[in-house]
Parts: sequence; structure tokens; C-alpha cells
Amino acid sequence: MVFVKRQDLEKICCGIFTALGIPEDEARSSAEILVAADARGIRSHGVARIKRYVEGIRAGYITGGVKPRILRQTPVSFVLDAEGGMGLSLSKRSMEKVVSMAEEHGFGACSIRNSNHFGIAGYYAEMAARKDMIGIAMTNTAALGVPTFGRKVMFGTNPIAFAAPSLNAKMFSLDMAATTVTRGKVEVYEREKKPLPPGWAVGTDGRTTRDPAGLLEDMLYQRGGGLLPLGGEGEQSGGYKGYGLAVMVDILTALCSGGSFGENVKDSELTSARVCHFFMALRIDLFRPPEDFKKDMSLMLEALSSLPPAEGAERVYYAGQKEQETEEASNRNGVALTEQVWKTLCDCAASLGLNATRHPV
Amino acid sequence: MVFVKRQDLEKICCGIFTALGIPEDEARSSAEILVAADARGIRSHGVARIKRYVEGIRAGYITGGVKPRILRQTPVSFVLDAEGGMGLSLSKRSMEKVVSMAEEHGFGACSIRNSNHFGIAGYYAEMAARKDMIGIAMTNTAALGVPTFGRKVMFGTNPIAFAAPSLNAKMFSLDMAATTVTRGKVEVYEREKKPLPPGWAVGTDGRTTRDPAGLLEDMLYQRGGGLLPLGGEGEQSGGYKGYGLAVMVDILTALCSGGSFGENVKDSELTSARVCHFFMALRIDLFRPPEDFKKDMSLMLEALSSLPPAEGAERVYYAGQKEQETEEASNRNGVALTEQVWKTLCDCAASLGLNATRHPV
Repeated sequence: MVFVKRQDLEKICCGIFTALGIPEDEARSSAEILVAADARGIRSHGVARIKRYVEGIRAGYITGGVKPRILRQTPVSFVLDAEGGMGLSLSKRSMEKVVSMAEEHGFGACSIRNSNHFGIAGYYAEMAARKDMIGIAMTNTAALGVPTFGRKVMFGTNPIAFAAPSLNAKMFSLDMAATTVTRGKVEVYEREKKPLPPGWAVGTDGRTTRDPAGLLEDMLYQRGGGLLPLGGEGEQSGGYKGYGLAVMVDILTALCSGGSFGENVKDSELTSARVCHFFMALRIDLFRPPEDFKKDMSLMLEALSSLPPAEGAERVYYAGQKEQETEEASNRNGVALTEQVWKTLCDCAASLGLNATRHPV
Repeated sequence: MVFVKRQDLEKICCGIFTALGIPEDEARSSAEILVAADARGIRSHGVARIKRYVEGIRAGYITGGVKPRILRQTPVSFVLDAEGGMGLSLSKRSMEKVVSMAEEHGFGACSIRNSNHFGIAGYYAEMAARKDMIGIAMTNTAALGVPTFGRKVMFGTNPIAFAAPSLNAKMFSLDMAATTVTRGKVEVYEREKKPLPPGWAVGTDGRTTRDPAGLLEDMLYQRGGGLLPLGGEGEQSGGYKGYGLAVMVDILTALCSGGSFGENVKDSELTSARVCHFFMALRIDLFRPPEDFKKDMSLMLEALSSLPPAEGAERVYYAGQKEQETEEASNRNGVALTEQVWKTLCDCAASLGLNATRHPV
């Protein structure tokens, strides 16, 4: 692993985006969100993705400096057509507006269509939690998931993030795909030539497949088959629940904004699909004094994380705890990147005539 | 099976509640909600539960005619202490108020503590959907679920309901426990002497158990072990996601109302635990004209339910579709009850000097 100072990493990514013509403010917040993913140990959503962003920007599929079109606005809500702008910076700005609506009226929400990959959903939910609010963030994604009892993809991994504050800047922060796993996990099994665990995916016949290479090929050529919803195949282990949650995300993100949903959300060869987002903030003092709420949150999180672990397990975590601990370590010791991701980033910078400067941590 | 006219069934249940001293209006709406569960085929939450309600009322643990204490109120929110009132009728009244707040301000929410079993969560979410809103309803329940990597119960089955309207009175209506299954399912396996499928429950060591009788005994005597969250044991199939959803429900229901959460929510010998609820409604025209939204909903639901099924499967359903079809059949042909449930209901009525009148369907 290579350890890079958070600020250095942000500067490199920001430099890449600005060199591609993304305005400074959008480039900076996009870089911050990408790097936040690595800092938390969510490497699938961090700078490892920069090549896809770069390709998308070069192909004109992701554009900087877009002024999103306001489709609808009320004192507590708005709907945007992102017109292919940067999903990361646009989402941050939108959540800021949702939070300020909630500051004034107790509640705020927005639904956005025609946007691009927004990184980690939890980033936006946590923005609200830091303001003594409950924060929710969702996005639909390229269709990779198969409904219970179906055999073709009809929804994305459709992540749901929910965050609520506790004492001492701690928080509960759930950020979960509605499918059992994401495509990235299948790719890891394919590289390692391991059979897929049951409950992860179905083949073209709609039944469990253990073959990662075959699955990836079937998905690429849209022959049928795909990822299973959380809960796995059929009804016995509750697969219809993950399926229901995935459709819920499509409703809030795409049906509420008039965007693409279901099987119509597709990655292109060059870049990720145009997707839809949903953000919501709910002021905690609608219900209770935030200090009382946070005291109870602290008791609950303490109780959960101090539980005796199962035979063979090390610890019980609450949602977001691992990521918060990893982020603290990243802030002290630098953000850990694989040699390969670091090299790709340096090459990417060099191809734009930039130096990837790395100070000692 | 015995087929009973919906109105007859409602009348019998209402009669039982009023004979026990529950005021007429509370008795009537409570009866309606219980019978709605049977009408939709959700028998675990229907009149089969009447004995537990009756015992709870007789023991004074559930009381009629309670005026809930308002702990906090804003134009878009309120918090109640239900003081042990009827969970069913109180929840209906509360959702009505939430819906009227949303009618005026676009949004409404409430959190309620110290309440009793409220029946099917979906009933309340659908009240909002019928008014062109997105409806959400949740409740915490007696602790039966074990956190990922843990070995003792720390949350309930904590159902989440989400409903959104489509055309022609159809709707998407998800109503799901955050655990893979509920205790009722384990009891069925115990009666049938079948081993539990993996992913359902862990024993006192925190590892998968297949033994329903042993599990039920360990849970009864609180020796450890319990139901697994949606996604099953460990992290491989996403068990931390169901665990996270269960805690999310505790946050919105109990932490927002100052009620009991986690392991402190316990059934007594006589009745179900005092629990906490959360209701929310969001007007669709905050985002889009409801007619446009519903047209897209109709396209989506149609696309999902007309998918070619997996090998060996009959049909693909969207959330709530089975229940809506069952309800239509129940309205035509009467509500199906097992002989045993019908007998229990008749005995219960007779013990209060009432006749369980059943007209031909």
C-alpha cells in the first residue's frame, strides 16, 4: 500500500478535474468526496474510479459548469435536471440546499435526474447528521439487479444511506446497496477464480449461479441474469425485501424527478450511466431536543459496539463505525491506496502535464 | 378454511373490543386494521392475534380511551406518549394527522412511544399513498434480532413500510421486517419438525442454528441467540444491512420519541411489548404532478409484473401486489380464516356473551 496525505490526494484529483475544464469549485468538492471514500476504506468508490470520470468528461458525457435546470421548487423541496453535470459536486451543493431548507422549515428534500455517479451515498447523509438532522441519500444506478423470481435486470444496486448524530462527533451511518453485493465484488471473485457464494447472483435462467466469469459476460452482453437483491434468491431468505428496497430507491430518485428508471439505466462503454438521486434532511428537534436524542444515541451505539462477539468473531460494530475508525487512521497516517491505484492516478496526472506531489506523512 | 364476510368479521372484533370497555371509535378502527391483515392474507397479524389483545386489555397493559400526551408539536411534526393505549386505533388517528400536515405543508411526521402492537405497518403507509403521497410507517418490536457478529438480541423484527400510488388505485406497497424472518416462521418450522434454513437464526454462540425448538427455548429464557437480520449471518451476504435497517427503525421510532429501544423492548407473559412507532407522509406534488408520477409508476409496475419468470417460478410480483390481489378476492369471497382461528374468535366472543354472527358470502 501507498500512504498519501489526504490534502495531497485531494489536490491531485482536483488538479486532474480542473485540467479537464471542470470549474475550480466543482473540481475541489468532487475531489474531496472521492478522497473521502478512500479515507474511509471504501476503495471501490474512491480515486480508483478517476479513470471513468476522466473518460466520461473527455467523451462529453459528464460536463463541468452545468447550471442544473430547476423543474420544480417549494420552500421544502426542489427537483433538478442535472443535464449531465458532475454528480459529486452537484450532489454536495444540493444536500447543502436541502439542509438549509430543513434548518428553516424542519424538513427538506430533493430529487435529481440525469446526473452522474455521485460517489459514496453516506457522504451526503452525514452532512445532515453533522447539523443535528437525520440525513438520507439515495441514487439509482445502472440496472444490474434481478427481481425475485425474475431472470433479467430491472434495477441497480441502488444504495440507501441513512445517518443520525450521536455525541462527540460520532454517528450512526448506514450506507448499503439494495443488492447482496455490487458488481465489483463479483469481479474480485472472477480474478481469484473463486465460486460465487449462493445468494449473490442468478444466471440467464433466473437461478443461482456460482460462475463469476459467465455471469459477468452474460451481464455485459445483456443476455439475462444479474445480481440478486439483499436476501438472495426466491422468498425463503427475504430476497423480495431487497428487491422492494431497490424499487423504493427508483421511486424516490427517478419517479419523483421524471428520470430514467429500471432497465433503462445503463452504463456506456466510456462512462457510468446517467442516474437519479434523492436527498432528504429532517431536523431532530422536530421530535426531541437534539442533546437528549444524542445522549440516547450514544448509549445505544455504546451498547451495540461493546457486545460480546459471536464464536469466532472479533467485534460487533454499528453502521459506519469501521469507516469512522478508518477515516481517523487515514487522517493521522495518510490515505491507503494500492500501488496500482496510485500508479494509475500518477499516470492520469502526468498525461495532463501534472505532477502528483506526495509529501511525507 | 372458513370464509367470513369482511363486515361480519369487523363487527365481531369490534364487539369484542367494546365488550372489554374500549370506546366505540377505537374498537371500530382497531377491528378494521386487524381484519385488513387477514383480507390481505397476512394471517400472522390478523384476528389470530385477538387473544393477545384481549389478554393485554384484561391485564390493563393495553387501555382504551387514553388521551395520548403530546410531548412536542410543530406544524409538520408531533411526538406522543401513547401511555399504553390501543396501538391500532392510535396509529390510524396519528397517520391521519400526519397526512393532514402533509396536505398543508407538503410533509408530516410523528414519532410515538409507549404504544402497543399496531398490526400491519403497510396499512398506515397506504393511507398516505391513497392521498397522492409517499407514506412511511415503522414500529420497533420486542428484541428478537441479533446484530451481525453478536450473540444476543438487541433489536426487534422492526418492520418498515413504504407505499407510493400508481394509477387505478394500484400501488407499490413494501412492508418488510428487518430480520430475515419473524418468530412466527420459526414456530411453524418447530411444529413441522423441520430444520431452519441457514440465514434465519443463531444460537447462544452467535453462530447459525438449524434447531427451531432449541432456538425458541433459548429466546424464551433469554439465554442468547435469536433471529438474524435480513442478509443472514456475518457479512458475506449483507447481514449488516438488515442489522443497520433494524437500528434505523429504532432511531426513528424510539430515539426520536424518547421511548424504549434495543434489548429493553420485551414482551410480557400476558401481552406484547410497549413499542414505538414512526409515521411520515410526503406529498408527491413537492416533486412532480401526481398524474405524471402515477403514469410512470404504472409503467414500472406493469413492466415488473409482466417479466418472464425464472426457471421453476410462476410469476414476478411487485411489492404489495400479492396482498392487493388477495384483498380483492377476500372482498368478493369473504376473508379466509383457518378453522382454528375462527373457533378461537367464536370462543372469545362467547366468553364475553357475544354471538359471532356470520352471514353467507
